[in-house]
Amino acid sequence: MSVEQIATSLPIISGKSTPQHPLGPLTASEIKESSRLIKSAWPSDVNIQFKSITLQEPQKAELLHFLAAEHSGQATPTIERRSFVVYYLRNTDKLHEAVVSLSAGKVESNLRLGPNVHSNADGDEIIAVERIALEDEKVQAEIKKLQLPEGTVVISDPWIYGSDGINEGLFSDDKRMFQCFLYVRDPNNSSQADSNHYAMPLSISPVVSAETMRVTRIDILPTGIDNTIKEPSPYKVQPPNEYIHEAQELRTDLKPLNVVQPEGASFKVSNYSEQGHNIEWQKWTFKVGFNQREGMVLYDVHYDGRPLFYRLSLSDMNIPYADPRHPFHKKAAFDLGDAGAGIMANNLQLGCDCLGSIHYLSAVLNDDKGEPLDMPNCVCIHEQDNGIGWKHTNYRTGRAAVVRNRELVLQSIITVSNYEYILAFMFNQAGEVTYEVRATGILSTQPIDEGISVPFGTVVHPGVLAVHHQHIFSLRVDPMIDGPLNRVVYDEAHAMPRSDFNPHGVGYTVSETPITTSGGYDLDYDVNRTFKIQNSAIKNPINGKPVAYKIHAPPFQKMLADPQSYHHKRAEFADHNIYVTSYRDDELYAGGKYTNQSRGGTGVRSWADRKDDVQDQDIVVWVQFGINHVPRIEDFPVMPCEILKVSLKPVNFFERNPAIDVPPSTQTFNKSVLASVAHQQEVGEAVVGGDGECCVRESSKL
Amino acid sequence: MSVEQIATSLPIISGKSTPQHPLGPLTASEIKESSRLIKSAWPSDVNIQFKSITLQEPQKAELLHFLAAEHSGQATPTIERRSFVVYYLRNTDKLHEAVVSLSAGKVESNLRLGPNVHSNADGDEIIAVERIALEDEKVQAEIKKLQLPEGTVVISDPWIYGSDGINEGLFSDDKRMFQCFLYVRDPNNSSQADSNHYAMPLSISPVVSAETMRVTRIDILPTGIDNTIKEPSPYKVQPPNEYIHEAQELRTDLKPLNVVQPEGASFKVSNYSEQGHNIEWQKWTFKVGFNQREGMVLYDVHYDGRPLFYRLSLSDMNIPYADPRHPFHKKAAFDLGDAGAGIMANNLQLGCDCLGSIHYLSAVLNDDKGEPLDMPNCVCIHEQDNGIGWKHTNYRTGRAAVVRNRELVLQSIITVSNYEYILAFMFNQAGEVTYEVRATGILSTQPIDEGISVPFGTVVHPGVLAVHHQHIFSLRVDPMIDGPLNRVVYDEAHAMPRSDFNPHGVGYTVSETPITTSGGYDLDYDVNRTFKIQNSAIKNPINGKPVAYKIHAPPFQKMLADPQSYHHKRAEFADHNIYVTSYRDDELYAGGKYTNQSRGGTGVRSWADRKDDVQDQDIVVWVQFGINHVPRIEDFPVMPCEILKVSLKPVNFFERNPAIDVPPSTQTFNKSVLASVAHQQEVGEAVVGGDGECCVRESSKL
Repeated sequence: MSVEQIATSLPIISGKSTPQHPLGPLTASEIKESSRLIKSAWPSDVNIQFKSITLQEPQKAELLHFLAAEHSGQATPTIERRSFVVYYLRNTDKLHEAVVSLSAGKVESNLRLGPNVHSNADGDEIIAVERIALEDEKVQAEIKKLQLPEGTVVISDPWIYGSDGINEGLFSDDKRMFQCFLYVRDPNNSSQADSNHYAMPLSISPVVSAETMRVTRIDILPTGIDNTIKEPSPYKVQPPNEYIHEAQELRTDLKPLNVVQPEGASFKVSNYSEQGHNIEWQKWTFKVGFNQREGMVLYDVHYDGRPLFYRLSLSDMNIPYADPRHPFHKKAAFDLGDAGAGIMANNLQLGCDCLGSIHYLSAVLNDDKGEPLDMPNCVCIHEQDNGIGWKHTNYRTGRAAVVRNRELVLQSIITVSNYEYILAFMFNQAGEVTYEVRATGILSTQPIDEGISVPFGTVVHPGVLAVHHQHIFSLRVDPMIDGPLNRVVYDEAHAMPRSDFNPHGVGYTVSETPITTSGGYDLDYDVNRTFKIQNSAIKNPINGKPVAYKIHAPPFQKMLADPQSYHHKRAEFADHNIYVTSYRDDELYAGGKYTNQSRGGTGVRSWADRKDDVQDQDIVVWVQFGINHVPRIEDFPVMPCEILKVSLKPVNFFERNPAIDVPPSTQTFNKSVLASVAHQQEVGEAVVGGDGECCVRESSKL
Repeated sequence: MSVEQIATSLPIISGKSTPQHPLGPLTASEIKESSRLIKSAWPSDVNIQFKSITLQEPQKAELLHFLAAEHSGQATPTIERRSFVVYYLRNTDKLHEAVVSLSAGKVESNLRLGPNVHSNADGDEIIAVERIALEDEKVQAEIKKLQLPEGTVVISDPWIYGSDGINEGLFSDDKRMFQCFLYVRDPNNSSQADSNHYAMPLSISPVVSAETMRVTRIDILPTGIDNTIKEPSPYKVQPPNEYIHEAQELRTDLKPLNVVQPEGASFKVSNYSEQGHNIEWQKWTFKVGFNQREGMVLYDVHYDGRPLFYRLSLSDMNIPYADPRHPFHKKAAFDLGDAGAGIMANNLQLGCDCLGSIHYLSAVLNDDKGEPLDMPNCVCIHEQDNGIGWKHTNYRTGRAAVVRNRELVLQSIITVSNYEYILAFMFNQAGEVTYEVRATGILSTQPIDEGISVPFGTVVHPGVLAVHHQHIFSLRVDPMIDGPLNRVVYDEAHAMPRSDFNPHGVGYTVSETPITTSGGYDLDYDVNRTFKIQNSAIKNPINGKPVAYKIHAPPFQKMLADPQSYHHKRAEFADHNIYVTSYRDDELYAGGKYTNQSRGGTGVRSWADRKDDVQDQDIVVWVQFGINHVPRIEDFPVMPCEILKVSLKPVNFFERNPAIDVPPSTQTFNKSVLASVAHQQEVGEAVVGGDGECCVRESSKL
């Protein structure tokens, strides 16, 4: 088994002035200290609702010095330790962001934000809002009209309210609110706490004010083909559609498949800080942090000692819905900014979520009282085999050279109400990094009258409509390809015109164009447009081309909501495949810092509009990808994973295939067995070979 | 271990009139009988060069009756057993195709083909051509000019000649020829038979006539930036670039990873015929055949008893190169039509190529004498775990429901001279089929003068140019989605215009358009165009939509060679993402039946030009996919696998997620372990649970 080493560049000392690695996530005591200092800035009777207490990452200029010293083994400079705190005065709209110096033990800045600036939802609030919506007298009066069977349990899914720019009156999106969608558990099985309530949506939708924690109005949802609203009327109980295994006739013919690493895993995990981990695997080294909003963050990624990425993280995601009718026109969730990929992370279960030889990372975040909140097993790390890495057989000799494709996976799973996202960073031995997203969980549903259909959604169960929606993700890539100053270029392949040089019309060339100005850029498969992050100062010794990493991102339909819509204004990343901006310390979240009921103007599109020079600069690359989710029956009651990948692959960065030195794939190492006895004789011949090597043969064929 | 059952609907009897399942590949005795009958049609002194002896698949009209009877357990009709034979009179251009009735014991038809119709290359021929090129006096005279060190071994890679439509003289592509590219083994290591000769290309390129088996001319390759040809001159020996493991400093820190199935694999394999296999796995059933040209072919694919695909196969691939200069302008290989994915298949090695609990299939093809040629272990079958299949956690209870994503893989690997392709059909428990191609092996290289670069290729080693090229694959899908008459439709997502119904500009709809006429069709991500194969007569019982399977194929840059070029004329599939044609019995190969030095006009584009009605008909769907391979240093000496996938996924075909009944993922089943001792305490708490189920928790959080 791999040994966990505790190795830090600074000693860990408990207590107030704990020096931590500048990239180390806050410790429990730092979280407590931060909330104590914030509270002490207010009268003691003021109730503070803490939204997030996270590390205030140092300025990059400082950090670069620190990391350079760390890498070269020199004494590291002292960097002030700070936390960033977002909080409300509870039951008001008074949102604050503060920076606390933990080194000095004082609050450095404390700003009141707003108007129209709101923080994320949090777990305690959500649970409270559920209860408030259901206990409200007027809501209960509406529910009564449904004449539900006795004992029916009504469930409330509070949603972030969304934005439509309406400034006045009862429908104003100015104040922070929750739009609650109601469902019932199968009335014939009310005691089943995990009954799939999404199969039984109701048309009653209470709106709860986050300030007063009271229901401010009740929307009745349209359930026909148009805007018509019908009074709630006696509810027709449809069949259930359960996902829990007791409700299924399970398959009985699946045999176990175990992944075994008899000598342990090949990766090493150590601490660079109490809450921060170093990972070493197959020439890769990097740091992993974890915070409330982004979940996993990778820092200081090197391959074989060469710098590649300063910081890698999921920047945000946006899920806009296609139903234009009130209140659905506001449905466009930012699952990181509105909630948080860290705080939503599942506690991963050995053998259930992760297969093989697993190492878990845990984290500590905060609750709304400012107390530390343990997040056990929020990240799992393991290796996996992904088939053959490379192979060649010399047909003259029959000798095959083959290696397998071993990958390292860091995985986290978030539950955002109905949906799940499985988020993973993957590394392989060919110098490639992949970010993978799997969308699963349950469609967000709303009621629909029987016997009708609508062009903006799919009926997935009697009375249940799943509206079309887009999932658009933004991966933030802060590169340092062989050094801190990079550029983005794009290659295009163009046919040569016919000429004396190209008389047969077959020639084509590839040309490279640098991006000079910050902005949004798109893929174009008709010219094979491929974006690369390049260090133009470092040339490949073999062919003289600048070293680079190319971006393989799948194409996707950009946000369909029109440019004047709030959806478009707010999800600033959703209109281009790639954004390139010049680096600035506080520009981490492509949808803006505060996405909840935002108005736009604070995200990557706005930063790119500065038209900064991004050629051979300290730049940031934002890679967008996603799907237009047109629901199908097969997505209900839970959807099979839809898998999306973005890969970063070396181009003329190395001098040969970086995986050329992976040991050959052999039977003694891999220990495959025959599934069938009948072939045993035949393969007995294949394994002969004292050293276990089995790929030398005499036969020659094409 | 799974038991291999021999189960056929007809008895297997050795001898002349052996009844075989009509889809069963030819047996060794049928191959011998076919060649005997062909030879007996000629005078005994005529030397026959057999190119392929394969099953002549019965007409679909007959087969449908047979399969229907087979499925319903009734007596199956007798179908005449036939073989299809392609052969030359050796050392002539007299190409013949014949149909032999094995049932009647006679040659039914025997046609002389041509002009301009040539068959594939074969292994014996290739080995002979290598020798002929190197032993030719004039070739040796050119080689002498290189003044190679004593003992240097020169290697010849014979290539199919290609087409440029030149009809007369020495450069006519009318006759079948080979364009041989020459290389040397590292002169400092001449005895190493697996030295990577692609690192040392020469500029001497002999052309060998397949008829006379003599060198007919010698091309000198251009090595500069233009068409200039230079006399061969003293060769500068560059450093080697070896891929064999002895030449590497291998990594020493990779720990073993084994895949173990202690109760055996979940799939069952039986014979439906002496050479044909039935596969049953997780509600999937299908037949697998194997032949010289296509390699694996899947027939009669059902899921849970419902018909899906009549026939699935790789139809061909084309790899056109970007260098417009002679002779490179002719480089455009059809690796199936020019060579054959069956005959090129590797003998897969337990533990090297396939990990886990493996079942091998072997096949029998033919050699050029018409004798049976054993192909042991040409297909491997195994399960693999591909992460989580679906998951949902009810945040109120903390109960997680999760299943893993188990896949079945049928894999074959082909070596086509320098390149390898790993070809796999994959099935999962959510009713999805995926065809995966991994491109690996060695770039095709040509010499380039030092110190220069060209816009149509990449220098990957001193003196070595790897020219840009496209890999374009065509997957042939003969569907029977819930029945034999299908249509192809495409969905598009369009924004709704602003209106009273859509006042906020966020609405969008998805509309469906049927394809009525055969032709080529393309993806368009700006409208999320998604193609589906539909049975319009069968409606989903929940939402009334016609049952369908959608096609997920990645976009690619279509063939860059211009429409007047022979590349474009010949690779008829390479200009559209999708082709839809009406079914005809002899239309299997999208590039035409005879691709070697073809002229076009015999492939899918030509069939589609019939403008047949394809709506609710017996149709065939051709799915193209590929990459524009712009070589990078990392692709040399062997390229890391580039992975491409095409998936076919159910849309409103089932009534819910077809994987909802997969047993929950549990630790007792999966037996993961902790990689680190340090966390053991913590996770000890997670595994508590008498039944092994570990996903019930009390904590509630978002």
